[in-house]
Amino acid sequence: MSQVQSVVDATRKFVQDEVLPLDDEFDGDIEAAGGDEARRRLQAAARDAGLLSPHGPEEYGGLGLNMTDRAPVFEEAGYSLFGPVALNINAPDEGNVHLLDCVATAEQRERYLKPLVRGEWRSAFAMTEPAPGAGSDPSALTTRARRVDGGWLINGRKHFITGADGADFFIIMARTSGEPGDAGGASMFLAPADREGIELTRHIGTIDVSMLGGHCELVFTDVFVPDEDVLGDIDQGFRAAQVRLGPARMTHVMRWTGAARRAHEVAVRYAADRTAFGSRLADLGMAQQLIADNEIDLAATRALLREACAELDAGGRASKSTSIAKTFAAEALNRVVDRAVQLCGGLGVSRDLPVAKIARELRPFRIYDGPSEVHRWSIAKRAVRDYGEGEPR
Amino acid sequence: MSQVQSVVDATRKFVQDEVLPLDDEFDGDIEAAGGDEARRRLQAAARDAGLLSPHGPEEYGGLGLNMTDRAPVFEEAGYSLFGPVALNINAPDEGNVHLLDCVATAEQRERYLKPLVRGEWRSAFAMTEPAPGAGSDPSALTTRARRVDGGWLINGRKHFITGADGADFFIIMARTSGEPGDAGGASMFLAPADREGIELTRHIGTIDVSMLGGHCELVFTDVFVPDEDVLGDIDQGFRAAQVRLGPARMTHVMRWTGAARRAHEVAVRYAADRTAFGSRLADLGMAQQLIADNEIDLAATRALLREACAELDAGGRASKSTSIAKTFAAEALNRVVDRAVQLCGGLGVSRDLPVAKIARELRPFRIYDGPSEVHRWSIAKRAVRDYGEGEPR
Amino acid sequence: MSQVQSVVDATRKFVQDEVLPLDDEFDGDIEAAGGDEARRRLQAAARDAGLLSPHGPEEYGGLGLNMTDRAPVFEEAGYSLFGPVALNINAPDEGNVHLLDCVATAEQRERYLKPLVRGEWRSAFAMTEPAPGAGSDPSALTTRARRVDGGWLINGRKHFITGADGADFFIIMARTSGEPGDAGGASMFLAPADREGIELTRHIGTIDVSMLGGHCELVFTDVFVPDEDVLGDIDQGFRAAQVRLGPARMTHVMRWTGAARRAHEVAVRYAADRTAFGSRLADLGMAQQLIADNEIDLAATRALLREACAELDAGGRASKSTSIAKTFAAEALNRVVDRAVQLCGGLGVSRDLPVAKIARELRPFRIYDGPSEVHRWSIAKRAVRDYGEGEPR
Amino acid sequence: MSQVQSVVDATRKFVQDEVLPLDDEFDGDIEAAGGDEARRRLQAAARDAGLLSPHGPEEYGGLGLNMTDRAPVFEEAGYSLFGPVALNINAPDEGNVHLLDCVATAEQRERYLKPLVRGEWRSAFAMTEPAPGAGSDPSALTTRARRVDGGWLINGRKHFITGADGADFFIIMARTSGEPGDAGGASMFLAPADREGIELTRHIGTIDVSMLGGHCELVFTDVFVPDEDVLGDIDQGFRAAQVRLGPARMTHVMRWTGAARRAHEVAVRYAADRTAFGSRLADLGMAQQLIADNEIDLAATRALLREACAELDAGGRASKSTSIAKTFAAEALNRVVDRAVQLCGGLGVSRDLPVAKIARELRPFRIYDGPSEVHRWSIAKRAVRDYGEGEPR
Repeated sequence: MSQVQSVVDATRKFVQDEVLPLDDEFDGDIEAAGGDEARRRLQAAARDAGLLSPHGPEEYGGLGLNMTDRAPVFEEAGYSLFGPVALNINAPDEGNVHLLDCVATAEQRERYLKPLVRGEWRSAFAMTEPAPGAGSDPSALTTRARRVDGGWLINGRKHFITGADGADFFIIMARTSGEPGDAGGASMFLAPADREGIELTRHIGTIDVSMLGGHCELVFTDVFVPDEDVLGDIDQGFRAAQVRLGPARMTHVMRWTGAARRAHEVAVRYAADRTAFGSRLADLGMAQQLIADNEIDLAATRALLREACAELDAGGRASKSTSIAKTFAAEALNRVVDRAVQLCGGLGVSRDLPVAKIARELRPFRIYDGPSEVHRWSIAKRAVRDYGEGEPR
Repeated sequence: MSQVQSVVDATRKFVQDEVLPLDDEFDGDIEAAGGDEARRRLQAAARDAGLLSPHGPEEYGGLGLNMTDRAPVFEEAGYSLFGPVALNINAPDEGNVHLLDCVATAEQRERYLKPLVRGEWRSAFAMTEPAPGAGSDPSALTTRARRVDGGWLINGRKHFITGADGADFFIIMARTSGEPGDAGGASMFLAPADREGIELTRHIGTIDVSMLGGHCELVFTDVFVPDEDVLGDIDQGFRAAQVRLGPARMTHVMRWTGAARRAHEVAVRYAADRTAFGSRLADLGMAQQLIADNEIDLAATRALLREACAELDAGGRASKSTSIAKTFAAEALNRVVDRAVQLCGGLGVSRDLPVAKIARELRPFRIYDGPSEVHRWSIAKRAVRDYGEGEPR
Repeated sequence: MSQVQSVVDATRKFVQDEVLPLDDEFDGDIEAAGGDEARRRLQAAARDAGLLSPHGPEEYGGLGLNMTDRAPVFEEAGYSLFGPVALNINAPDEGNVHLLDCVATAEQRERYLKPLVRGEWRSAFAMTEPAPGAGSDPSALTTRARRVDGGWLINGRKHFITGADGADFFIIMARTSGEPGDAGGASMFLAPADREGIELTRHIGTIDVSMLGGHCELVFTDVFVPDEDVLGDIDQGFRAAQVRLGPARMTHVMRWTGAARRAHEVAVRYAADRTAFGSRLADLGMAQQLIADNEIDLAATRALLREACAELDAGGRASKSTSIAKTFAAEALNRVVDRAVQLCGGLGVSRDLPVAKIARELRPFRIYDGPSEVHRWSIAKRAVRDYGEGEPR
Repeated sequence: MSQVQSVVDATRKFVQDEVLPLDDEFDGDIEAAGGDEARRRLQAAARDAGLLSPHGPEEYGGLGLNMTDRAPVFEEAGYSLFGPVALNINAPDEGNVHLLDCVATAEQRERYLKPLVRGEWRSAFAMTEPAPGAGSDPSALTTRARRVDGGWLINGRKHFITGADGADFFIIMARTSGEPGDAGGASMFLAPADREGIELTRHIGTIDVSMLGGHCELVFTDVFVPDEDVLGDIDQGFRAAQVRLGPARMTHVMRWTGAARRAHEVAVRYAADRTAFGSRLADLGMAQQLIADNEIDLAATRALLREACAELDAGGRASKSTSIAKTFAAEALNRVVDRAVQLCGGLGVSRDLPVAKIARELRPFRIYDGPSEVHRWSIAKRAVRDYGEGEPR
C-alpha cells in the first residue's frame, strides 16, 4: 500500500469516527458546534492521528503532499463538512499556506506560515470588494495602499472575506499603482488582525454555515503595514496571487467531491433499503438513472481534477485546466447532491439525512472562487484565441 | 378592469405593503416571525382588505373564485412566502377547504368548513405515512380504522403532515377494508386535534420553514371518530380525495410561481444595476440567457397551469394535465430561482437578497405532492395506454 | 362536434391515408417523391377532401380559420412531413398568404393572393442575405431598391430563400432608404419569378429535404418592379413584415408539433412492443422517463402556442409570447424527437422507422426563423426593460 | 518530442492533406467517395506515411501502440470521418484486431489477423440480432451452433453488423449451449465471408454513411465452421468478447473526439469571423457559453478516456471506467457538435460547413455499442452493490 493510500485510509477512519458525529449533531453549523473551540479540539485529534496539515511543508509538521496526492486525502476530509477544518485544510487557510510557502520571505515564513501550518493561527485572504470594486473582475480593485515612511497605509472595504472572524492575520490585496480598471498595480500585504484600523463590520449571512469565521465585511482605515510585511513584490500582487489561484480552485474541488460523495452514498443506501411500488427503490429505472448520473459526474470531476493536479505538480500554471475542472466540478457536484436529495424523497429535504445540508453548503461553490459564467468567459476567450484564426475548415 | 384583476391588484399591493416586510425581516421563517400570532395579525389585515379566503365559498365570507381566477391572485400572494398564510390560502388549509366544500355534509360544513374559511381554525390532512406505509404509493396505506359502536377507532402513524402543529382538526385517511397494497379500502375521517389518542410526536426538521405548523409526525392510538365525522363514503376515501388532488397541485403551482417570479424580478433588477467587465451585468450575453430562460420557464409554467385550471373549472378531473403542470412547474420554478441566485452572485447566497430563501423553500416542491419521478411514471403509463397499441407507424 | 374538430379529424384521416405513404416511401425527400408534380397531386386530393388552404380567405376557397383554430389542424398536417405541402400550408406560402391578406391591394390580392390560396402558384419571401447582410439582424439589410421611372430597380443577393426554386413570384425585402445598420428604410416588392434580372444561383444543400423548392441563393440584378407591385408602404417594410412574423412563427410550431408527435407515438408503440431484460421496454423506468418527458414537452409547447394564438387572434402583435413559444417549441420538439430516436435504439437511426428523418428535418427549426439565441436576447432585453428599474426587492 | 507525439503530428498532417479533401467532397459518404476502392487508396497512402495500423502488432507491420498512446493518434485520425478507415483503425476491424491479438491461435493469427493488420482484408463482428435476439442484452442470443463432425453448423440471423458488406471474414457469436436468456453458453467462430450459407440480406439504411460496409442484416443457414476456426474456448464466447469490449468502447471515443473537435474548431473559427449586432459573434456571451461548454465537454471526455486507458494498459478490465467514459463521451460529443451547428447558424445545417455531417454521423454513437440507458443501468447496479449496504450515514 502506498504511503498516500495509508493517509487516505487513516483520514477516512478519522473522519468517520471523530468528525462526522459532530457535523451531524449540529447540522454542519460550525458555530453551533463550538466554533473555534471545536476547531482546536478536532485539530488536536488530527494532530494525534498524524493527519494535521497534509499539504503543509514538512519542516513545520505538515505531510508535504503534492497536489496529486492531496486529491484523495482532501476528498476523504471533505466527506464531513467539518473534515477540512479538522485537518487544517479549510479555505482560506489551506490556500494561504500554499501562497506563503511559494512567496513568503524566510522571516514571513517563521512569523506567519509556521503557526498556520501548526494550526495555531488562522488567516484570511482579503481580496474581494463590494460593488463597484474587485469581484469577478479583479482589475476593479479599489482598496489602496499609500506609501508612507517605513511602509504603507491601507484604506478600503472588503466583503465576502471567508474566515475573517477570528483570523489571526490577513493577506490584503491593495492597489499600489494605477486606477480601478487597470490590469496591474496590485500588491499583497500581511497584517495581524489586531492591527489598528482593521474593522470587521459584519457577517454576511450566507446559506452556508460550515466555514469557520464566516464570510465577512471588513473596513480598512489607515492600516499601517511595514515594509517587511509586504508579501511578494510591489505591483506584482495579481501575478503572485496566481500561484494561489489554480491550486485553491482544485482543493475546493477535492473537498466538495468528498461531500458530494457522501450525499451520493447516503442516497444509494437509502434507495437500496426502501421499497416502493413493489420494488426496491434502487431497482427502479428512474432511480437508477439518478444513481448512474451521479457516478458519471463524480468520475468526470475526479478525472478533470487529476489532470489539472498533474499539470500543477509539473510546474504549470494550469490556468485552463483548473478553470475547466472548477467549473465542471461546481456544477456536477451540485447536480450529484441535488439528485441525492431527490432520491431520498421527503427525508432528503430534512435533517434526518445529511443530504439537505450538503446541498445547502455546496450551492455557493458555483459562485465562490469565480462564478461559472466568468470561468466560461475566460475559457471561451482562450478557445477563440487558439482556434479562431484562418478559414473554417 | 375585470373584478378578478382588481383582486389581483389589491393582493399585489397588500402583499408588498403588509406581508413582504415581515417575510424579509425573518428570512421567511414563520415561527421566528411569530407563528400563529403572526398569522392572526396578517389574516386580520387581509380580512380588512377584503382579500381573505379568495377561494372560499361566499356564504362563509370567501370570494368564491374558480381555479382560473385563483391563478393570478394566488401568484400575487405567493410573491411573499407569507402571502398565502396571510390570505388563508396556504397548504393544507386551502386544499382542505376545497375538499370539504365538495364532500362535507351540511353539518360538517358548519362545524369544520366555516371556521376554516373564516381563518378561525387551521387544519391538516393526515395521509402520508413513514415507510413502509403510504407515501408516493397511497395503496400502501397502513393506518386502520376499526368499526366500533357509533363510529370508528383509528390506529396508525403519519409523517410529513404539513401544518399539524397548531391545527384545530385533522382529516385522517385510514384503511377501513383490505390490506396494504390494495388500491381501495380507504376512508376519510374528521377529528378535532384535541381528541384523545392523537399525539404529535415530532417536527421533522425540513429545510423549508415558511409553512405554519411545520411538517410533523403523528401517532393515532385508538382515536375515536363518531359516524357523523366520517367524511364522504366509507371505502371511497381515495376516490373522494381525488377531488382535492388536482386542484391542490395547481394551487401549489400558483403560489410558487409568485415566489419564483419575485426571485426573478429581484435578479433582473440586480443585473440591471450592477456593472462588471465594463458592462451592465444585464447586457452580458450569459446573464441575458439566464434571464430569458427564466421568462420562458415562467411563461410555460403559467400556460400549463391555465390549461389545467380551465379543465378543472369545466368539471374534469384533469389528472393528466395537472400532473404534467405540477411536474413541469416544480422543476421549472426551481430552475428559475437557481438562475436568479446565480445572477446575483455572492449576494445570491446571502440574506441580503431574498433569492436564497426562496430557493430553500422551493426545493421540496419537486418532492412534496408527488416527486417528479412518480408523476413521470404515471404520465408515461398513460401515454403507453394511449399510443402503445398497433404497429409503429 | 365543433366544425374545427371535424376539420381536424378529416385532416388526420387524409394525412394517414394519402400523405404518409408517400412521405415514408421517399424518406421525407420531396424532390425524390416527385417535387412539384407530387405537390399538385397531393393538393388536388386535399382540394377534393375540402381541406386545401384551411388558413386562406374563404373568398378564394380557403377555410378562413383563425390562429387558434389553425393550431390543431396544422398539427395534424405536420404529422407527415408532406402534410403541410399537401394542404398548401407549407412555409413560406402559408405566411405569404397571411401577409398578402393583411397588406395587399385589391389588385395584388387578385393577381398574387388568389392563385396562392388556390394552390395554383407558389411563392417565396426573399429577406435573408449572406454575411454581412440581413440575417438574425434584419437591420443589416443591404439589397437596395433604387427609384426609377414608374417603379424601382432592385439589386442584391439573398440566401436561405425557402421555396425559391419553382416559386411563381417573390416578395422581396429591399432597402429604399438609409444604410445597412439602420433600423428602418426597408420596403417590400412583388415580382414574378420570370422577371428579368432574377437569378437562382444555387441550392444551399441543407440537411432538411422536405421543403419544396429548397433553400436557395438568389441574385437580383436591376430587377424592375412597377409601382403597383410595391407591397405596403415605402420604407415601412419591416413594420409590415411584423404582420407576418408572429403568425409565421406559430404556424411553424404547429406543423412541427405534429411531426414531433408522430416520432413520439412511433417510439411509444415501439417501446410497448419490444422486450428487453425480461420486461417490456415501455415498463422500464428510463424508457418511461423519456416518454413522460416527451409528454411534458409536447403539452408545454401546445400550451404556449395556444396562448400566443389567442393573443394574435385578439389583435395583439404577441411579439413576446410568440418569441417565447417559438424558442421553447424549437428546443422542446427537438428534445422530443431525440428521445424518440433513443427509445427506438438501432432502428431509431435507420429508415425502418420514421423517427430519424423527423429528427433531421426538425433540427434547423432551432435556427430558422431566428436562432434561439437571438430570441433569448430579445426576451431578456424586454425583461430588463420591464423589471429592471428600482431597487431589488 | 516523444515518439507518440511524432505519430500524432504526422497523423494530423496526413489527415489534413490526404483525407479531409475526399471527406468534404463527398459529405462523409464513404460509398459515394469510392467505397472499398477509396479505402485501398487511402490506406496505401497511410502505409507510405508509416501510419497504417498504429494499434496493430508490430510483427505484422503495426505500430503496436498501447491504449494510452492510441488516444491522441486516433483522435487525430477521427478529425476526418474517413481518417479511421485510412489508418485501418475503423470499427469493427480495429476491435477485431485487438480481439484476435488476444485470443487467436498462432494459425488463426497468420490466417486472419495478419491480413487484417496489413489492410488486405476487412472483417465484421456478427453479434447483435433482431428482436427478440441479442441486442442490448447479449444473453438473449438465439443464433445457434450445432456440433457436427469436425466442426459446427451455425444457423441464425444477425443485424446491425457493421462493415459486413465487403468483409473478408466474420467473427460469429453463436450459442453452443443453454437457451436464450442464459448468461453463458456462447462461442465465437471465424468464417470467411464466402463460406456457404452466409447471406447478406440487406443494408439497414442508417443516418450514418461513413462506415465502410454499412450496417447489415445477415442470415446464416447451416454455415459450417471447422474446429480450427473456433475462436477461444467453447461456451466462453461472452467472456472472451470482454477482451474486445472495453477497448472497443474507448477507441470509439477516441475517434469521435476527433470528429467533435473538428466541428468545434470550425464553429469557433466561424464565430471569430462573423459579425452580428455590431459585435464579433465570438464576443457575444451566448456564443461564448456554447464555446466554453464545448471546451469543458471535450476536456472531460478526454480525461475520462485517459483514465480508462491507463486502467486497461495496466491489465484491468476497466468495465466501470470504460462504461462511464463511453456514456459520458457519447452524450458530451453529441452536445459539442450540436452546439457547433447552432453556432454556425444557417450554414451549420448545410453542406457548406462540415458540422452538419459530423452531427449526423455522431448521433448513433449514443446507441451503438450499448445505448446510454443500458450503460447507466449497469453503472447504477454496480453502485448499489458497492454502496448499498448498511444504514444511510
